[in-house]
Amino acid sequence: MAWTYEAPLRHMRFVLGQVLDAPAAWAACPAHAELDLDTACAVLEQGARFAAGRLQPLNASGDLGGCRLDEGGQVRTPEGFGRAYREFVEAGWPALAAEPRWGGQGLPLVLDACLREMLDACNHAWNMYPDLLHGAVETLAAHGSEELRQRYLPRLVSGEWLAAMALTEPQAGSDLGLLRTRAEPQADGSLRVRGSKIFISGGDHDLSDNIVHLVLCRLPDAAPGTRGLSLALVPKLLPDGSRNAMHCDSLEHKMGLRASATCAMRYEGATGWLIGEPGRGLAAMFVMMNSARLHVALQGLGHAEMAAQNALRHACERRQLRVPGPRANADAEADPIARHPAMRHALLALQAQVEAGRVMAARAALALDLAAHHPDPAVRAARQAEAALLTPLLKAGLTRLGFEGASAALQVFGGYGYVREYGIEQSVRDARIAMIYEGTNEIQAIDLVQRKLLGDGGAALRALLREFRAEAQECSGQPRLLAFARALQESCEQAEAALDALLARDDPRAVLALAQDAMDGLWWLLCAWAFAASARAALREPAEDPLWAEALLARMRYGVDWLLPRAALHWQRIRSQDLVLPEVQAAR
Amino acid sequence: MAWTYEAPLRHMRFVLGQVLDAPAAWAACPAHAELDLDTACAVLEQGARFAAGRLQPLNASGDLGGCRLDEGGQVRTPEGFGRAYREFVEAGWPALAAEPRWGGQGLPLVLDACLREMLDACNHAWNMYPDLLHGAVETLAAHGSEELRQRYLPRLVSGEWLAAMALTEPQAGSDLGLLRTRAEPQADGSLRVRGSKIFISGGDHDLSDNIVHLVLCRLPDAAPGTRGLSLALVPKLLPDGSRNAMHCDSLEHKMGLRASATCAMRYEGATGWLIGEPGRGLAAMFVMMNSARLHVALQGLGHAEMAAQNALRHACERRQLRVPGPRANADAEADPIARHPAMRHALLALQAQVEAGRVMAARAALALDLAAHHPDPAVRAARQAEAALLTPLLKAGLTRLGFEGASAALQVFGGYGYVREYGIEQSVRDARIAMIYEGTNEIQAIDLVQRKLLGDGGAALRALLREFRAEAQECSGQPRLLAFARALQESCEQAEAALDALLARDDPRAVLALAQDAMDGLWWLLCAWAFAASARAALREPAEDPLWAEALLARMRYGVDWLLPRAALHWQRIRSQDLVLPEVQAAR
Repeated sequence: MAWTYEAPLRHMRFVLGQVLDAPAAWAACPAHAELDLDTACAVLEQGARFAAGRLQPLNASGDLGGCRLDEGGQVRTPEGFGRAYREFVEAGWPALAAEPRWGGQGLPLVLDACLREMLDACNHAWNMYPDLLHGAVETLAAHGSEELRQRYLPRLVSGEWLAAMALTEPQAGSDLGLLRTRAEPQADGSLRVRGSKIFISGGDHDLSDNIVHLVLCRLPDAAPGTRGLSLALVPKLLPDGSRNAMHCDSLEHKMGLRASATCAMRYEGATGWLIGEPGRGLAAMFVMMNSARLHVALQGLGHAEMAAQNALRHACERRQLRVPGPRANADAEADPIARHPAMRHALLALQAQVEAGRVMAARAALALDLAAHHPDPAVRAARQAEAALLTPLLKAGLTRLGFEGASAALQVFGGYGYVREYGIEQSVRDARIAMIYEGTNEIQAIDLVQRKLLGDGGAALRALLREFRAEAQECSGQPRLLAFARALQESCEQAEAALDALLARDDPRAVLALAQDAMDGLWWLLCAWAFAASARAALREPAEDPLWAEALLARMRYGVDWLLPRAALHWQRIRSQDLVLPEVQAAR
Repeated sequence: MAWTYEAPLRHMRFVLGQVLDAPAAWAACPAHAELDLDTACAVLEQGARFAAGRLQPLNASGDLGGCRLDEGGQVRTPEGFGRAYREFVEAGWPALAAEPRWGGQGLPLVLDACLREMLDACNHAWNMYPDLLHGAVETLAAHGSEELRQRYLPRLVSGEWLAAMALTEPQAGSDLGLLRTRAEPQADGSLRVRGSKIFISGGDHDLSDNIVHLVLCRLPDAAPGTRGLSLALVPKLLPDGSRNAMHCDSLEHKMGLRASATCAMRYEGATGWLIGEPGRGLAAMFVMMNSARLHVALQGLGHAEMAAQNALRHACERRQLRVPGPRANADAEADPIARHPAMRHALLALQAQVEAGRVMAARAALALDLAAHHPDPAVRAARQAEAALLTPLLKAGLTRLGFEGASAALQVFGGYGYVREYGIEQSVRDARIAMIYEGTNEIQAIDLVQRKLLGDGGAALRALLREFRAEAQECSGQPRLLAFARALQESCEQAEAALDALLARDDPRAVLALAQDAMDGLWWLLCAWAFAASARAALREPAEDPLWAEALLARMRYGVDWLLPRAALHWQRIRSQDLVLPEVQAAR
């Protein structure tokens, strides 16, 4: 009755092979030219085995046991986490998408994204520990001195050492400009770092000996605000093997993700080294922002998939009440709840969005691959802009889907969903944080409108719309895809009109008041595209399993008929000229 | 930084006195003719003191400690719960709205509703224990034999004894027709009850010596399905003081509401007595359905109010980032987040719905009072029909608001919201169950369309629409209320068109596929009315505190401008003739 996980390998293969034609993209990039779809899917199959076989069984016990701070000030992870991590390292998973130069396997990020979705679905808390490796590696590779890179990159790439990002302070959450941690340069070129950080995921633990902290801090006489921030590498173990002057003071007791150590860290003159230039700390961190935020989006997708498949299984088994109309099984006392209209809505809405979300996430990861490896600089630039535009949309959209999807699955389970042993309630609790960290979803909406839509005068969105219109054009030639073509065409027109309306506003406050509407409208635009592209791919090659293709088509069609109309409200608001957002009064 | 609670007494007085003119309703009912607004508000003030002073401090500790089953098979409630309950009984709160004939104070249900909202806001889990008293009293008073009533009612009304409802069995949740618990008549007129029940709130505890279970069961040779159900009174202690043959086998470990004992009960030939006629058990239970479901709605309202006021407080204190535009405080490094557009949306949407929800809930409770006590049978029948129509709407709408509002407040708190010590995450966990129990929100939607809209050919809704149109008419005479009048008028037209469209459908499956849309559309209709009625009341008597009235008006106007447009999608769907809801496939 508890959660099980069957990795969506078939849909992943369909997305990579049929919807996005990833092999064509790989063929165009020398770094990935050797890769074919079968090999890629074989890698994912191995990953699925690890996730479902090793991580899923530790998910509930990790939540129950949680982390603890032992008497020596060392954080202890739940039973079994260390062993699973050692196997993960031995199998080479941390190195999957890292550069061969530092020991990585150099596989595409799009495969890494599929792997992460499975790890997160099976054990979000466990995956928090290695989740930050990729970002630390990217930051260090792009901005670290050669000495730092030689010393740290190989062991981070292999996963022998883990990493932590130390940004937040009590007074500085979304507003990093307010942070106060100090770094003083020493004669030997190192820094002495002093300050306190909170909410540091994996700030301490027992999965690896060393933990490499990337600490955002201020050098003496730094400018106020974000321009005064620098980035320091501060390792738990110094190069001579001794313990650095940094401590985990306490662990947070959280709603969920209890097996992930959320540390309050104190740096008491800890030794560190500058990464990048003084006062350019935020720029160095932004290197990893797109992929880090995409990783959080994948956590949401993982939760949503887990929710979708378990809700479906339960709804097919559980029998309650009769559905009006002809009876499939006249002898049974009641029908499976999957036949009841309310449950069909819940299940189809979740399935359609999960499947569309997987297409979107893979598209974003593939764009990052092309941005890094395509030989044509114009393609690289275009795909970088596309990934930058998609990032806030997917971070906010998929983390919301993860939480709301888990809650919808809980509802399908009814009273059982509220009870711990079924595991759904843990998913609701674990999924909730992803809407907050790595930039709250409200910060994502600001990033979307200010930087991604208005920052380039709408160029990135218009480029995306051109591709979406081409998809609509393709669909319009096939009678069974007409509804998809029409919905996508309509979404593109609405999105363009909304973009023009936003560009025409001269008051930044009015734009911010509509940021969430832009987010919601564009989410449904992405869905409209993913529904159409998936439906066309399913019709194109139904031969392998026509029933599977038809069922997918029906789910995508549900999305067009029942979900996409939700966008209208948001487009209307953005175009409206007379909507006023009042100030909030402190007293009610 | 943790939760605090300031009872919304001012708004309650405004709702009772200005919006609904409850004193006029009381004057019309002989049972309440003595009551005036000042007395009523003085009672609520006492209730607020108990809730905030005695219950709120036990909320977090109760969650942390939870309940336990001791070695003797007795359930132990968390530290402090018993003492608080004794004070509650000594102060006479359980008897507030009960009939004087059985020792009750005979005050209106609308006051009881305000009290319950405060108790639930401060400690939902604690309030689960006395929450079922009123329903048990009503059921017993309406259907019990004179002997049973004499024996049990006085001590239930005083709260000396508590009650539990024993319905659910593993195979019978939403579908009570499947339940199997047996009752065998004995020569002395008693029953021997055998069977197992799950999810029994307060099935055992240590707050009262005796616990009176109302057990849904089958007599020998009962018909299958719900027609074969009977209701038995099965007390923990028999009249001679000995222990009955009933046991709590285990407690559920739940996502939230951990201080409320959710028991798996075993009846092993327990002695009981029939309530009402054989085979009429469900009818006897339905006596209490409207008030019990309204109580659950009030739990949602309580959570939403707690969320709204604490999110506001935090948003006014927490400073992060600058808002574009003129600066209120040029010296401060950052603005209060309450000034940021995303937070204004979150706070205003929650405030507007909480305040509208309180108006709706009070209206429903007042309708129940009029249905019970008005001298004119036509008024009684009309208000009974109104309460029956409002019940599923409020149960589903306010429990969703409670959960989503708590989650919205968590988002306002950011990372702090996810941490236990701030209390918001508990509210999210506690609030979630109310969408499931006492009839899932999906069951409420079925009840709404099948029984409350189509069951009487739409008469109850049309009667409500007549009153709402009169409100729109009143508003249309005042320039500042024109937007409210227009929105309410439009909502009434849309609702009536939707009703006609539902009545015109001949396929019950098509109606069920639109049940949630009917629910959502009518929720916004109720909001449209509550916004308009509140705004008109605020304008009518602003003298007492014009700033307060203006601020309320602005929040109601936010609701009209930003929230009501959400209804359009639902009305469109109901009118659409070509929407198809596919079946769900077991495999994806």
